[in-house]
Amino acid sequence: MDAAKDAPPKKAPLEGITVLDFSRVLAGPYCTMVLADLGARVIKIERLATGHDTRAFGPFVGQESAYFMCFNRGKESIALDLKSPRDRDLLERLLSEADVLVENFRPGVMDRLGYGADRLARTHPHLVYASISGFGHTGPFSDLPGYDMVVQAMGGIMSLTGWPDAPPARVGTSFGDLGAALFAAVGIIASLYKRTRDAQGTRVDIGMLDCQAALMETALARYDVEGKVPTRTGDSHPSLAPFETFNAEDGRFVIAAGNDQLFMLMADALDAPQMALDPMFISNDLRCRNRPAMVEAIEAITRTAPMDHWIDRLNEAGVPCAPINTIDRLFSHPQLQARNMIIQVEGAAERPVRTAGNPIKLSSAADIDVARPLRAPALDEHRDRILSELMSGTGDYAPATGANDVPQPQEAVTPMKRASA
Amino acid sequence: MDAAKDAPPKKAPLEGITVLDFSRVLAGPYCTMVLADLGARVIKIERLATGHDTRAFGPFVGQESAYFMCFNRGKESIALDLKSPRDRDLLERLLSEADVLVENFRPGVMDRLGYGADRLARTHPHLVYASISGFGHTGPFSDLPGYDMVVQAMGGIMSLTGWPDAPPARVGTSFGDLGAALFAAVGIIASLYKRTRDAQGTRVDIGMLDCQAALMETALARYDVEGKVPTRTGDSHPSLAPFETFNAEDGRFVIAAGNDQLFMLMADALDAPQMALDPMFISNDLRCRNRPAMVEAIEAITRTAPMDHWIDRLNEAGVPCAPINTIDRLFSHPQLQARNMIIQVEGAAERPVRTAGNPIKLSSAADIDVARPLRAPALDEHRDRILSELMSGTGDYAPATGANDVPQPQEAVTPMKRASA
Repeated sequence: MDAAKDAPPKKAPLEGITVLDFSRVLAGPYCTMVLADLGARVIKIERLATGHDTRAFGPFVGQESAYFMCFNRGKESIALDLKSPRDRDLLERLLSEADVLVENFRPGVMDRLGYGADRLARTHPHLVYASISGFGHTGPFSDLPGYDMVVQAMGGIMSLTGWPDAPPARVGTSFGDLGAALFAAVGIIASLYKRTRDAQGTRVDIGMLDCQAALMETALARYDVEGKVPTRTGDSHPSLAPFETFNAEDGRFVIAAGNDQLFMLMADALDAPQMALDPMFISNDLRCRNRPAMVEAIEAITRTAPMDHWIDRLNEAGVPCAPINTIDRLFSHPQLQARNMIIQVEGAAERPVRTAGNPIKLSSAADIDVARPLRAPALDEHRDRILSELMSGTGDYAPATGANDVPQPQEAVTPMKRASA
Repeated sequence: MDAAKDAPPKKAPLEGITVLDFSRVLAGPYCTMVLADLGARVIKIERLATGHDTRAFGPFVGQESAYFMCFNRGKESIALDLKSPRDRDLLERLLSEADVLVENFRPGVMDRLGYGADRLARTHPHLVYASISGFGHTGPFSDLPGYDMVVQAMGGIMSLTGWPDAPPARVGTSFGDLGAALFAAVGIIASLYKRTRDAQGTRVDIGMLDCQAALMETALARYDVEGKVPTRTGDSHPSLAPFETFNAEDGRFVIAAGNDQLFMLMADALDAPQMALDPMFISNDLRCRNRPAMVEAIEAITRTAPMDHWIDRLNEAGVPCAPINTIDRLFSHPQLQARNMIIQVEGAAERPVRTAGNPIKLSSAADIDVARPLRAPALDEHRDRILSELMSGTGDYAPATGANDVPQPQEAVTPMKRASA
């Protein structure tokens, strides 16, 4: 309590950082959303007239794309014609103010635009330059287009997802994009940390396929050690039992009691203590081998009462369990409510859209205010503000003149002030 | 090229950072693996005699757990008896050297051990203290156990994964653990960045359920806007077509041609240019509505030749496509090879285990050397080294004496040198 009294005012960790965001669709915008949620100022560089593609993606609230709103909350927008010398000059000045650049074009596109990583490493050596692409900027596949669905298939997760007697399924969200977005955010912030010590920018090169491989957990090692190709296991864990769904009277729910102690507690909570002594079920290994018999024994009991009855009893006993929630049930979920996880985003449309908030809860930074919608920018909404800042010299950098822009070691890189401050 | 000549020697971004790792099983160890891959020194605090649970998880190489090896590569281990005054004293000294603490016990456990966040915020205010738990440390569910399977069910992803005519499936890897691990890594590194400016530590509180909600992409917004509960779509994207798998003569593969331009290129590549002019398929919206007819039209062609034939043709045409790879095919994948994504980890066992490497490719840091196995620590392997460092005062902190340990703003926090340096 004393500590709380003396605590400094809360300041988001990336406050003061300016991100120039050339990215489109999902992986890039999700990454810069994470940076914005942590306090960075994110300026979206958009195409004239139409802006980014996702402004035309459904679903819509009025004329406005809810898809766009979700991932671009809290950002600013400026529309630039990169063929116009005036706008190119403006972009040079923005680059000199920026700490981070994020793009997710196919390799080569940014070079052709004149804003490739090699050039900017020379002219803006303090810049953290992050690219997210399907396969990364090196290797034989680097020129191929890599969408979420492509890397989910190529990277192995589809071969592990779904029921063994049905074709492989995709993960129900864009696991390929979101995984890459999070690894990119880690790489960017780590590079910003490093820059506080050596005043050097970094090129961050994230390939979605690489990230899929990194998220395969033990699947690679299991094949390497056992020689068996891991496959789909429906709703159950490949090496823990019970760790799957069971039918109750009114629907399916999860029991995750993968060790012997929890299995004993589960058996008690189901009023079937003898089940824990059954020689077929006495260890996790035996339960895995006798899984069909175990499921039958458990369901013989769970089918006799509604899910809520069993969930209450298992919770009391300390046995991990859960209903299989559909998305509508998340909005009123007491834990997500208590954790500020359902937030609002508003744009020009008549009403805000509800989406998920920031799961990174920091004692030193205020959480998103669930009562106050965050704003998703209209196309070019912040042009005047950005121009007037550049004109009035609010920024701390002179226009780009090359290597002189390098901040000195241990000196904080003080970017343009947040316009919202 | 000039830039490369003048470049400073490569130094991992988190070099110099010391992480005390109390975490077990998957979410915590995966998070600290990411930190170790970025150059942090990670010291595992393990139980005497048995060490962490996963040392007993299969599969095994010789006597050693490949599960443990995968996620604990490049870390150090010390076994402590937290009931012994001598080991508690040792831990105090380690805490004074540490920059980050990571734990994933149930809320309350670290407090009972005497190393809760409130106490350490007072005695070690520079420390970034990260907790990963099922539901986070606040809210009505915070005391409940939250395993991966539990949050996959409760957080909505299972309701979206699998085929509509089969029960919900789990994501084939531990999406609940891994998502939380990555958000935790983002929060930790952002807090280290912030500490370079205000010399204050941060409490990072990550709930796996929160992270699941944050990874639901547009599902929440779609329900909020359209009032329809999003559901499972098997292997297809809910709002893009074609964006799914198709049968070839010898198996299934993905075509992801979700816009009209790509659909035209696809039709050409399949020698069926007229398909792109069919009024049923002329826009993405129409293709979504007429999906069964579209799938039939495409498969009538793709079934006539092997997958590789179509993949070559589609790749030439620039149409995103992919085989559904099983895990065994990742080891020899030319792109993963070229990107150093298949690495080796060795322990005491007779041979190393192959697993996935670090997908965060940084120009300023050397990648993991695929030819040289990383080491997973034996239990207590680094006790002598750590003790001798503490005894010889290599560390830069005096034993904990409270608030005096706070580094000053803008002053780099210089921790104990990496033992491996």
